Amino acid sequence: MRPRVYLAGPDVFLPDPARRAAALKAACAEAGLEGVSPLDALADEPADWAALPEWRRLHLRNEAHIRGCDALIANLTPFRSPSADAGTVYELGFMRALGRPVFGFTTSDAPFTRRTLAMLGTAARREPDGSWTDGDGLLVESFGLTDNLMIDGGIAAAGGTLVVGSVPAAARWTDMAVFRQCVGHAARVLAAGQELARK
Amino acid sequence: MRPRVYLAGPDVFLPDPARRAAALKAACAEAGLEGVSPLDALADEPADWAALPEWRRLHLRNEAHIRGCDALIANLTPFRSPSADAGTVYELGFMRALGRPVFGFTTSDAPFTRRTLAMLGTAARREPDGSWTDGDGLLVESFGLTDNLMIDGGIAAAGGTLVVGSVPAAARWTDMAVFRQCVGHAARVLAAGQELARK
Repeated sequence: MRPRVYLAGPDVFLPDPARRAAALKAACAEAGLEGVSPLDALADEPADWAALPEWRRLHLRNEAHIRGCDALIANLTPFRSPSADAGTVYELGFMRALGRPVFGFTTSDAPFTRRTLAMLGTAARREPDGSWTDGDGLLVESFGLTDNLMIDGGIAAAGGTLVVGSVPAAARWTDMAVFRQCVGHAARVLAAGQELARK
Repeated sequence: MRPRVYLAGPDVFLPDPARRAAALKAACAEAGLEGVSPLDALADEPADWAALPEWRRLHLRNEAHIRGCDALIANLTPFRSPSADAGTVYELGFMRALGRPVFGFTTSDAPFTRRTLAMLGTAARREPDGSWTDGDGLLVESFGLTDNLMIDGGIAAAGGTLVVGSVPAAARWTDMAVFRQCVGHAARVLAAGQELARK
């Protein structure tokens, strides 16, 4: 059976999310993985969820999808902020707590600190010790990472990969090359895991 | 034994994070809870972590703290974006996957959609169906929630509370009243859980 990989990301907000999900799944299939999209119906959705408001149903469905997958790939392309989409980050932490492999990719190669300073603009302040703070005096993380250290750390601790691409802004939500690279890493890690399990 | 509660939040970025952590812990203690800060040393930190870069050590320590706690309280006050701090959201998802209660608070009562539209400014676009999209055509979530639906959904599904306060901007990172209210909710839920466990 092909390993099932949950496809976390703000891709669900794209104008044609079903088309994007189909493209991502096709790339997964080519690498021997089964991509699971947040848009997918849940095979055994409890009947009583029908009474819940849509946002609660969507949340529960996503959590159930993640629990039903062997790994997670997160689209960590900065989303309306210096960081990745909040829902995606929640799901990354969720899967990491389950102890399964997590992977990430971003189509922007600007480091987290530089993105944060760009967003802060003139509100950024250089402190005497060389660190940066924002307009409220809160520290700007400066570890040279791709995003908040919990994101980079979670992927590293899970033995995953964080693929950083450099894609022109106009293509940052539609690019497939960086995703394919991440899927390749995931396929290799998951195949090695299956190999071990057979021994 | 007092229930242990992990205190997730960008409070660690404050100019005097130790002082803030002490204030949060004192408020927890008054409610019969033991607050655990990301700044706390880990009792049984593996010796080989010393060889890791600081950001990896911090990440592993935070995950270990969360695993060692009975519940999590997240400071979800919007952080340099319409959403909460990415590290905090990761930790919220992490604890939710462990199946333990999660709670949240924010000192800003502006709904997520309004905050997102304010950030987008003139890039926001009203679609013919009444929905909002951003400059890239990506949908703006409009469920009337406090943040991304995974955050509100996770807290709701865990039986937790999301306390929304209205604090002047100048006090949004130092206010204690909204936090105390959230701690009160957490203390009641955790006491009820202990009561059940004794039966």
